[in-house]
Amino acid sequence: MSLDAVLARLDSDRAAALERLMAFLRIGSVSTDPAFAPEVKRAADHLAGDLSSIGFDAKVYPTTGHPMVVAKRVKGGGRPHVLFYGHYDVQPVDPLELWEHPPFEPFVANGQIRGRGAADDKGQLMTFVEAARAFIAVTGDLPIDVTCLFEGEEECGSPSLPAFLDAHADLLKADVALVCDTGMWDATTPSISTMLRGLAHEEVVIRCADRDMHSGLYGGSAWNPIRILSRIVADLHDANGRIMVPNFYDGVDEIPTQVKAMWDGLGVTEENFLGPVGLKTSSGEKGRSILEQVWSRPTAEPNGIIGGYTGEGTKTVIPAMASAKFTFRLVSRQDPKAIIRNFRAFVEARLPPDAVVEYKGGRGSAAIRLDIDDPAITVARNALADEWGTATIMAGQGGSIPIVGQFQEVLGINAVMVGFGLKDDRIHSPNEKYELTSFQKGARSWARIIAGMATR
Amino acid sequence: MSLDAVLARLDSDRAAALERLMAFLRIGSVSTDPAFAPEVKRAADHLAGDLSSIGFDAKVYPTTGHPMVVAKRVKGGGRPHVLFYGHYDVQPVDPLELWEHPPFEPFVANGQIRGRGAADDKGQLMTFVEAARAFIAVTGDLPIDVTCLFEGEEECGSPSLPAFLDAHADLLKADVALVCDTGMWDATTPSISTMLRGLAHEEVVIRCADRDMHSGLYGGSAWNPIRILSRIVADLHDANGRIMVPNFYDGVDEIPTQVKAMWDGLGVTEENFLGPVGLKTSSGEKGRSILEQVWSRPTAEPNGIIGGYTGEGTKTVIPAMASAKFTFRLVSRQDPKAIIRNFRAFVEARLPPDAVVEYKGGRGSAAIRLDIDDPAITVARNALADEWGTATIMAGQGGSIPIVGQFQEVLGINAVMVGFGLKDDRIHSPNEKYELTSFQKGARSWARIIAGMATR
Repeated sequence: MSLDAVLARLDSDRAAALERLMAFLRIGSVSTDPAFAPEVKRAADHLAGDLSSIGFDAKVYPTTGHPMVVAKRVKGGGRPHVLFYGHYDVQPVDPLELWEHPPFEPFVANGQIRGRGAADDKGQLMTFVEAARAFIAVTGDLPIDVTCLFEGEEECGSPSLPAFLDAHADLLKADVALVCDTGMWDATTPSISTMLRGLAHEEVVIRCADRDMHSGLYGGSAWNPIRILSRIVADLHDANGRIMVPNFYDGVDEIPTQVKAMWDGLGVTEENFLGPVGLKTSSGEKGRSILEQVWSRPTAEPNGIIGGYTGEGTKTVIPAMASAKFTFRLVSRQDPKAIIRNFRAFVEARLPPDAVVEYKGGRGSAAIRLDIDDPAITVARNALADEWGTATIMAGQGGSIPIVGQFQEVLGINAVMVGFGLKDDRIHSPNEKYELTSFQKGARSWARIIAGMATR
Repeated sequence: MSLDAVLARLDSDRAAALERLMAFLRIGSVSTDPAFAPEVKRAADHLAGDLSSIGFDAKVYPTTGHPMVVAKRVKGGGRPHVLFYGHYDVQPVDPLELWEHPPFEPFVANGQIRGRGAADDKGQLMTFVEAARAFIAVTGDLPIDVTCLFEGEEECGSPSLPAFLDAHADLLKADVALVCDTGMWDATTPSISTMLRGLAHEEVVIRCADRDMHSGLYGGSAWNPIRILSRIVADLHDANGRIMVPNFYDGVDEIPTQVKAMWDGLGVTEENFLGPVGLKTSSGEKGRSILEQVWSRPTAEPNGIIGGYTGEGTKTVIPAMASAKFTFRLVSRQDPKAIIRNFRAFVEARLPPDAVVEYKGGRGSAAIRLDIDDPAITVARNALADEWGTATIMAGQGGSIPIVGQFQEVLGINAVMVGFGLKDDRIHSPNEKYELTSFQKGARSWARIIAGMATR
């Protein structure tokens, strides 16, 4: 049976596969910082080159932002056709001083691949590429048609993606999407994500005086934008963790009781969920379980704040300006546009007459719920159970993968979210890692899923 | 009469005096940033060299921080003896991009000397040095004994000064101190400051998780230090501008009714006080005049805040840490130690169980009130009225000059605070300037004060 041969090939080719991933990780493709744009381009070219080398028709498509990579190996004739999605851009690396090793000089230690992007998402997307490579090496072909779409702007809100999908709907046409940007339940238990929170983001810049002022001359009389901004942040939640933006909970549904029962049965507590990051208690909504808080309830978080003097020592200044970045994780039928509109009203209700506000951002995507009885999801669920030797958990997901909603809306296809990340992978943090087992058994899992898709 | 000759000499020597100031301003003596330490030392050497060249016995004294310059020209024999104080260090220059010209490349335009330190305090202290130089050039001597003390740590809280005064009380012994670090009432009206607010400062660092976290994975459950810190800042004031730190107003006295009447007669309004910095309304305590708010009432201000991602674009992070710098302007009998203690209790009352706080700072100095009938103050008041042709205003001062309290406590002498800064000098801000009239008539004013001291 060819699947066994493909799995054997993946096992024998491990060292070379790892070296290919390391070469990819050495490219510092930070999409959110314009200074890294040449590296982002280099990562796109690198990936397209690799896929061409195994017989894909791969092209780099420029956009107004970072490029898209589309790689096709399509024969038609009624074979199933999957659209595989991953992203080759990575998060910024600051604070750089907390990395134990330079983020773009990856290495392997203690069964872990270390470096920025190891888990999110270069290591993950390469699990699929390695599975495809092994199939082609062993059988000379893939048993299904495959189109790959690799994005370079996932970490900065995918600004070019909607227009690209619209313009290239025919190029990207498939029966189902496969997305590899999520996690396992734990290091030995596979998981498919069927709920994803949405995401809206906004940056708020508040200005008062037309210059920084001396706190001796003006202190006691001059408006301080740090105080105004802090009031906005502090007012976002009440003492019970409820979000106070007007109409924020419009469209938030309760999860079905059987789903809640399943989640409650998973044994997740504040202690075991938050312990790995050094916390003991949850800051979340009172009366909600921890999995509800992170999977089925919306959030409002300041992700960054800056204003005034932040260097060494002291400076007696009342600054002219302060700013903060916010993200909102959305659930159910919450409307990102309404969230942003209501948040802006919330901000403006807290501005004194002498303060002016500027917004940067304001984009968003809604939450996703998939049908857990979809046939493609069943194929993946069984394939994962075969590889890992244990039942696949159908999970929620606190993060956001806006592409999944866009695949539904623009291309009219569902997405199967399979991924091999672990909770302690430190994605978006210093010292990001990906388990070698995730990388190796992830590739084997995709080989099984591809084989399953061919025979269903 | 020799005073007339000295004044004439100051007028004829203006171009050279200006060039001497420019050379001094070219030295980037930012005391709060350790990277500038060599420049601070260079400024001390430069100043000592200049004073030696006109016959002072000038020495640079190392401290555990930046050095002190002491320059003496003392003959004894019952002559009056003044201790002149100024500081040769300057504020940091950030945000550098808002300077129209590099801060340490001073130049003269439109009757203004532009550059960091032009007003605070290099230009000011040189008014006295130029007056002394002219006296010596014309008469071969000064008519009084003079000891100069120039500090290099005024802008970072004067950490070395108390021990230095203690250890060198004999060296610095004098009848009265003259301090040049304050302002005029307006461009044509001189002023002596008889009330100074004190200053306490504190930096608060809040840590929650042991790493930055992904807001998708943990958002809704993980403590966000930006939220905790914002609550602390937002709670500092109530809706009427009252400061909510426990017992904050202990020791705050009302000003005498005749002083309040004098201040009310000065015609200062929210509009004309705040208009020059682009504001229309005061953020201050309700029911207090603007001059009370900035001269006789205490403040609590965040001077800087930082946490999370503050670069370009967006990053979905819940940070591990956030920090803010605070200063408190103190009045009357407020005790800086009690203020810091009570503020720390206020902070800790707002920490959830998983947050830890670290403090950096915690130093302070009390407010000052001087006797406006002191004979030395009367000499200065009359000398200033003679030079400027209008009555000298006896003013409060919102800023803090801790040295004045230390002169009282350690050396047992009062200080006369005379200065020529204007409200629009942009001290502590980009594009700092000093009026040429302040520099030139300031020097003439000191010549008159020195002459007055000699004959009283």
